[in-house]
Amino acid sequence: MGEKKQKKVRAAIEAANEEFMDAVGRGDLPGLVALYTEDGQVLPPNAEIMSGHEAIGTFWQAIAAMGVKRAVLETLEVEGHGDTAIEVGAYALSGEGDQVLDRGKYIVIWKQQDGEWKLHRDIFNSSLPAPGS
Amino acid sequence: MGEKKQKKVRAAIEAANEEFMDAVGRGDLPGLVALYTEDGQVLPPNAEIMSGHEAIGTFWQAIAAMGVKRAVLETLEVEGHGDTAIEVGAYALSGEGDQVLDRGKYIVIWKQQDGEWKLHRDIFNSSLPAPGS
Repeated sequence: MGEKKQKKVRAAIEAANEEFMDAVGRGDLPGLVALYTEDGQVLPPNAEIMSGHEAIGTFWQAIAAMGVKRAVLETLEVEGHGDTAIEVGAYALSGEGDQVLDRGKYIVIWKQQDGEWKLHRDIFNSSLPAPGS
Repeated sequence: MGEKKQKKVRAAIEAANEEFMDAVGRGDLPGLVALYTEDGQVLPPNAEIMSGHEAIGTFWQAIAAMGVKRAVLETLEVEGHGDTAIEVGAYALSGEGDQVLDRGKYIVIWKQQDGEWKLHRDIFNSSLPAPGS
């Protein structure tokens, strides 16, 4: 892909991340889950791989139950390969009153389906010290 | 890429992972670091992003200091895109007497450079319960 096309992919991924952040902010669980491919996977810390919309919904329900009200995603790099894009980014999750509950980094593998970029593989981990360490 | 070419990429990644496991088993830190691209990154849990060979060496030194003697990598999927490959896998780290110290999952972004596949982005997290949870 040329540089111009790469910039276009990055802009599309950043726009999709805006939708993601909006859905978290609204507490819109079905809207959030719909941003993943049907066979999408979340690979969360301290749990097994969550595959498909139902499991991904359960995962995000647990995150909401921890008091997360806002997610901030910062794209660090995007590499487009046809209908696939690799994103490396940084995240922060905050609760009531913008208290940061967690921050870390992630890699998301995106798939373009019917013109829309959807999260297909989503792995992340905290940059904060381990609890009890 | 056709199915045949995808199988070839997967076999190459699995062969590179064998080298990786051998290097961990030998305690060969320079050999391990050399499997990463010069501008490679490890994104470890509970730490910031480690960029470049020196930082990656420091990371693996810390892992060795935790008593890790053996790493087992199991490739779950590989998707090749030209000189880039996306791998989703599962890992287990064990110490003296094959005691499992940690197990989890990872995504590695591989780059083919001068015919060799090298780890370029490496993120992982544990599937075990959080300490103190």
